Amino acid sequence: MSYTEVKEYEPLTEKTAVTLAKSLGLFSNEILMCNEIGDGNLNLVFHIKDQESQKGIIIKQALPYAKVVGESWPLTLQRSQIEANALKQHGAIVPHFVPEVFYQDELLAITVMEDLSYLRIVRNGLIEGERYPLLADHIGEYLAKTLFYTSEFALPPSKKKEFAKQFSNPELCRITEELVFTDPFFDSESNDFEEELYDEIQSIWQDSLLKLEAAKLKRKFLTEAEALLHGDLHTGSIFANQLETKVIDPEFAFYGPFGFDVGQFFANLIFQAITGNEEKRDFILQQIQQTWKSFVNHFTHAWLHHNIDNFAEVPGFLDSILNKIFEDSIGFAGCELIRRTIGLSHVKDLEGIADKDERIQNKKAALTIGKTCILEHSRVDSIQQFIVLLQEALTGEAKK
Amino acid sequence: MSYTEVKEYEPLTEKTAVTLAKSLGLFSNEILMCNEIGDGNLNLVFHIKDQESQKGIIIKQALPYAKVVGESWPLTLQRSQIEANALKQHGAIVPHFVPEVFYQDELLAITVMEDLSYLRIVRNGLIEGERYPLLADHIGEYLAKTLFYTSEFALPPSKKKEFAKQFSNPELCRITEELVFTDPFFDSESNDFEEELYDEIQSIWQDSLLKLEAAKLKRKFLTEAEALLHGDLHTGSIFANQLETKVIDPEFAFYGPFGFDVGQFFANLIFQAITGNEEKRDFILQQIQQTWKSFVNHFTHAWLHHNIDNFAEVPGFLDSILNKIFEDSIGFAGCELIRRTIGLSHVKDLEGIADKDERIQNKKAALTIGKTCILEHSRVDSIQQFIVLLQEALTGEAKK
Repeated sequence: MSYTEVKEYEPLTEKTAVTLAKSLGLFSNEILMCNEIGDGNLNLVFHIKDQESQKGIIIKQALPYAKVVGESWPLTLQRSQIEANALKQHGAIVPHFVPEVFYQDELLAITVMEDLSYLRIVRNGLIEGERYPLLADHIGEYLAKTLFYTSEFALPPSKKKEFAKQFSNPELCRITEELVFTDPFFDSESNDFEEELYDEIQSIWQDSLLKLEAAKLKRKFLTEAEALLHGDLHTGSIFANQLETKVIDPEFAFYGPFGFDVGQFFANLIFQAITGNEEKRDFILQQIQQTWKSFVNHFTHAWLHHNIDNFAEVPGFLDSILNKIFEDSIGFAGCELIRRTIGLSHVKDLEGIADKDERIQNKKAALTIGKTCILEHSRVDSIQQFIVLLQEALTGEAKK
Repeated sequence: MSYTEVKEYEPLTEKTAVTLAKSLGLFSNEILMCNEIGDGNLNLVFHIKDQESQKGIIIKQALPYAKVVGESWPLTLQRSQIEANALKQHGAIVPHFVPEVFYQDELLAITVMEDLSYLRIVRNGLIEGERYPLLADHIGEYLAKTLFYTSEFALPPSKKKEFAKQFSNPELCRITEELVFTDPFFDSESNDFEEELYDEIQSIWQDSLLKLEAAKLKRKFLTEAEALLHGDLHTGSIFANQLETKVIDPEFAFYGPFGFDVGQFFANLIFQAITGNEEKRDFILQQIQQTWKSFVNHFTHAWLHHNIDNFAEVPGFLDSILNKIFEDSIGFAGCELIRRTIGLSHVKDLEGIADKDERIQNKKAALTIGKTCILEHSRVDSIQQFIVLLQEALTGEAKK
């Protein structure tokens, strides 16, 4: 029996994954290697390879629960469909930045896609001191194009409304709504932090101005359906080498505010600026600046050539949109910095620091910069000003 | 055969409407009166009455086209379902302000509802000098409650996302996107105006600042899914008498920005302030002020007692939301004032003025006030300030 004829959901094993790969006709060789390489939290990920031709594929299968948030947080398998559709949707816009999808099966919650194992996860590379000279240009372009071309600036509103329905993603959005935008600002059970941070955390929970801005940012996430977001664009969702960049795992995709993806990427670079030495810090800040420059260039190009809105040529409209995206991005970056430090889901950039004093010191810096981003996001006028603000915050923290 | 067993869409006649009414068991008497009372643009509306008991019902049936925008603008019958569902959704929140729905049939695009013919359409009453002493209080309450209780302030985000999908309404939204937010600001075919207004209209089309603000307001309408709106809340969608107020015709319902319904109601009152004498003007301005006061009272009450957002008690959050709603409302009111004067769809308040000079004079005032609302909407801080701004504009226009 071909594996594609299986009529009921069941988790794949390395053996059935190979059977599936063969039945799809993607390999001519009979002998295939298979390894399950997922982190086992939300999905199974099988890497299947023909040793002879060196050709490989990835089979990703959603699991019917999310281990990371405990058994109490069941997730339907629908997210597999959302991820595959987002890969296709974004892939049609920027095929060079998205893995190719070869096959998808809704019932089995399976997506079969391009093997990117010749690239490296950017978070791991950056932590180990690697540099990706084209990363900022690429991600700026990826963001500008995926966001612009899924918005009403490029799609007739009826088409966009159709996509917004298709990508309605309440379960995964709920994870972000709670773990990014709510729990870290309150004494919630899901929070996870060292007791040495307790004073700083208390000051977050008691800061009315900070919470007011966080509340407004959460509302943007809840209500502003601007473009089809990746929804989880941290450096662990990006593969790269010196020449190529590929964005994976858009299972959190939904119609949300332009600035959310940009902000998450900014924040995850900022962790590297916090943990690095002075030279690395300057390099990372330059990457942030370059990402935004690339974003502005590509977004502006798309606007000038493909904007279907009658108001497109009204003086000041493009600037006002770019300004809104920028402000929102900084605010969202602030939320990401805080939640990755004291919320449920942490980052290796900080957790990997073996020395406890140093780790705590870096976490305090992340909290301080996160707070600054949230409080100042609507007052920062330019990328230069943002970089100066980050430089000052980082230098201030380093002096402590 | 019971009429409810008909298996294919066909427009009702007065005869088949009576057959349907009888087969629903809503009348015991065999002899029923029936009149088609719709304006024939988008729907058939049958008023069925038992002369003996004086009991009546309304049968509304969607037509598969929209005459008002020509044969080139076909509309699916789905809007009948949206209207019936919105009546039920809003009716569950404010049953005293919404007609009761007795029956709906998706295939036939039929909604059978409460007969409100003992009340009067507010636009007609106001034009003829009637006053509705409770209208402002009621509409303020209607708006506050329908908007608050369909937003994430009262609904879990997953529930709201489900409703947002259910009320995705691209066809009717497109009418608003084009006829309210686009065409009047450009030399579009759909516009309709007397040549005496040409200079004023030219100045609108050439006003970059005005168009920039209009562009931003259009984007709010396109992207901000805050609450389940009525979507077409002009004074022709409201029945009233001295004691009661009922809001009908929510076929434009969708998830949009809080301020849109508020702004449309404001604008349609403003037409009465423009066309009335000084005494009426003061009365109408007082009604606008009272509507907002009532809105704030009811919205605040709902917030304090039923807000499920963790951030609900953060100081300043309620104020910032009310402020946003208010600013948006004024901007949207400005768009409505302009489009009802020079766009495709006009209002009897202005068109009914027989004297041409007077009519043109009033239309010029509507355009001036509309522009002011759009340009100033984000600078108006309070309802008092808005009333003063309207008073000044109206007095300035009267002096011309």
